[in-house]
Amino acid sequence: MATAAPLTVGVDLGGTKIQAVVVASRRVVGQARHPTPQTTAAAVMAEIVETIKEALTATGAPAGASPRLRAIGIGTPGSVDGATGHVSQSSNVPGFLADVPLGPTVSAALGNVPVAVDNDVRVAVMGEFHRGAGRPFKNVLGVFVGTGVGGGLILDGKLRHGRGSAGEIGHTTVKPGGRRCPCGRRGCLEAYAGRLALEQAARRKQEQGHKTDLFEIMAAKGRDRVSSSVFADALEKGDKVTTRLIDDAVVALGIALANAQNLLDLEAIIVGGGLGDRLGPPFVARVAAAVGPNLRVPNHPPAILGTELGDLSGAVGAAVVAGG
Amino acid sequence: MATAAPLTVGVDLGGTKIQAVVVASRRVVGQARHPTPQTTAAAVMAEIVETIKEALTATGAPAGASPRLRAIGIGTPGSVDGATGHVSQSSNVPGFLADVPLGPTVSAALGNVPVAVDNDVRVAVMGEFHRGAGRPFKNVLGVFVGTGVGGGLILDGKLRHGRGSAGEIGHTTVKPGGRRCPCGRRGCLEAYAGRLALEQAARRKQEQGHKTDLFEIMAAKGRDRVSSSVFADALEKGDKVTTRLIDDAVVALGIALANAQNLLDLEAIIVGGGLGDRLGPPFVARVAAAVGPNLRVPNHPPAILGTELGDLSGAVGAAVVAGG
Repeated sequence: MATAAPLTVGVDLGGTKIQAVVVASRRVVGQARHPTPQTTAAAVMAEIVETIKEALTATGAPAGASPRLRAIGIGTPGSVDGATGHVSQSSNVPGFLADVPLGPTVSAALGNVPVAVDNDVRVAVMGEFHRGAGRPFKNVLGVFVGTGVGGGLILDGKLRHGRGSAGEIGHTTVKPGGRRCPCGRRGCLEAYAGRLALEQAARRKQEQGHKTDLFEIMAAKGRDRVSSSVFADALEKGDKVTTRLIDDAVVALGIALANAQNLLDLEAIIVGGGLGDRLGPPFVARVAAAVGPNLRVPNHPPAILGTELGDLSGAVGAAVVAGG
Repeated sequence: MATAAPLTVGVDLGGTKIQAVVVASRRVVGQARHPTPQTTAAAVMAEIVETIKEALTATGAPAGASPRLRAIGIGTPGSVDGATGHVSQSSNVPGFLADVPLGPTVSAALGNVPVAVDNDVRVAVMGEFHRGAGRPFKNVLGVFVGTGVGGGLILDGKLRHGRGSAGEIGHTTVKPGGRRCPCGRRGCLEAYAGRLALEQAARRKQEQGHKTDLFEIMAAKGRDRVSSSVFADALEKGDKVTTRLIDDAVVALGIALANAQNLLDLEAIIVGGGLGDRLGPPFVARVAAAVGPNLRVPNHPPAILGTELGDLSGAVGAAVVAGG
């Protein structure tokens, strides 16, 4: 890559990995992925800087701070102060429960290039809206089915923030008094469709005597948690507990997404996240079929689509947020 | 009233009554209410014209078409073609299941004054937003609990139409597989909170042997249907079936409104409609209390308010839509 186009970096910070991309002229021209250090916030921030440097090197640009590097965007879990670039209240990233000066620290380490910090789900929605499956539309709900279930809403082409907390489709009540959600309430969409809640439900089923191969598949893959790919493998092998849990997840998504559609009359709903991407088009098609019967205007459904950027939605969206 | 300010008329067409107001300088300066003829669309439109004339007379303006009458807005049930002023698919207004040239007919009868036609719930939301309880806010959901449950959404100060069907909060699924809704599906908010569904549920309870005074109260008031005021009287008298049904309606509203809040992070939710207005502030306070536990961000709830315009929300909103 030897163009003179200015470069923008996007970073998707997660509990297990740091994904960086370099964008030039709206195209990804370099990328890198590192594991998230499981130690301190300082170590995490140092690793973000290393991941960015590696992604820049992958473009053919000189190592370290580049004169062509215009801006960096970072999507992170937790509560974000967009004005200061500080993050807090993330239980997924080591050290990020406390107040962490993420933006200023990364900026200082890379020649004081401007750094924009935003919520991980929101930047992923921006990625799919501007560069992925959402491009043909102006009114889109992005639903990211991962460890939890996050959402972001684009209305009339703009990300809706509300008073700071819009997009929480994961905490739509889909079954009053139903399964306990990681948020503490009962019957939320996330309690039926989030990876963590599914893992907990599978463990309870096993303790209740239901036979499942899910945890053997997990062990065989060398994992210590039931990842999206473990669920995908168990589903493919016809594991009954897994099949039943995913059936319930589809039903729950059908209710929650139809509720949103009935209220907002959107053009499209994009289903992504680790579980959404891994289970792929057959899962998205099942969700679409489950939405249909719950629609007030069934003959005019929204397009229900998988992501186009897959696990790069967040990093690309972070670059978009930074102007790239 | 002897000002020279131009007059705008707003009409709220319902299945049982036609309410007209005359607005000058943003104030209601005259009004009239007639029963809706239970015969033909032509009779209904003729009665709308008479109601408008009576409302204009009440302002002190000369009878009939007034040179100061600038425009007329009409809110109607059914499917509205805003460009032509035609209405169809309303089962509540006699003759309005077929295509009815409502706007052109009323315009021709009143000196060809411009007539704007819009959906009854949407205009009621516009009334409360611009002239009622919604004035301090820019992001508001209006929920009208009447024969059915309708809704309208104001985002960033603008009514959201979506692709034509936005606002259907009444068909949020609040209990999967639950009570049959007049729309044919199961478990909708309207099945638990709409007046018609409540009346049907009360009849089933009575047929199942539950004792209720609801239908005696209805008969004593000379009604042939369980109106909002009949429900209010039965509730006040401690009728057990009614108490239980309204308890369930509050729970259902708590779920549906919290779902909308979690997704949109609104400033305010306005609860109106025949049942909402008649049961009044204690009912609205109960709904607010039921919303709270379902909120993702419980320490930052929306204001949950009753209407300020009461049963004039629709007529005033129709005048607003017509520029008054």
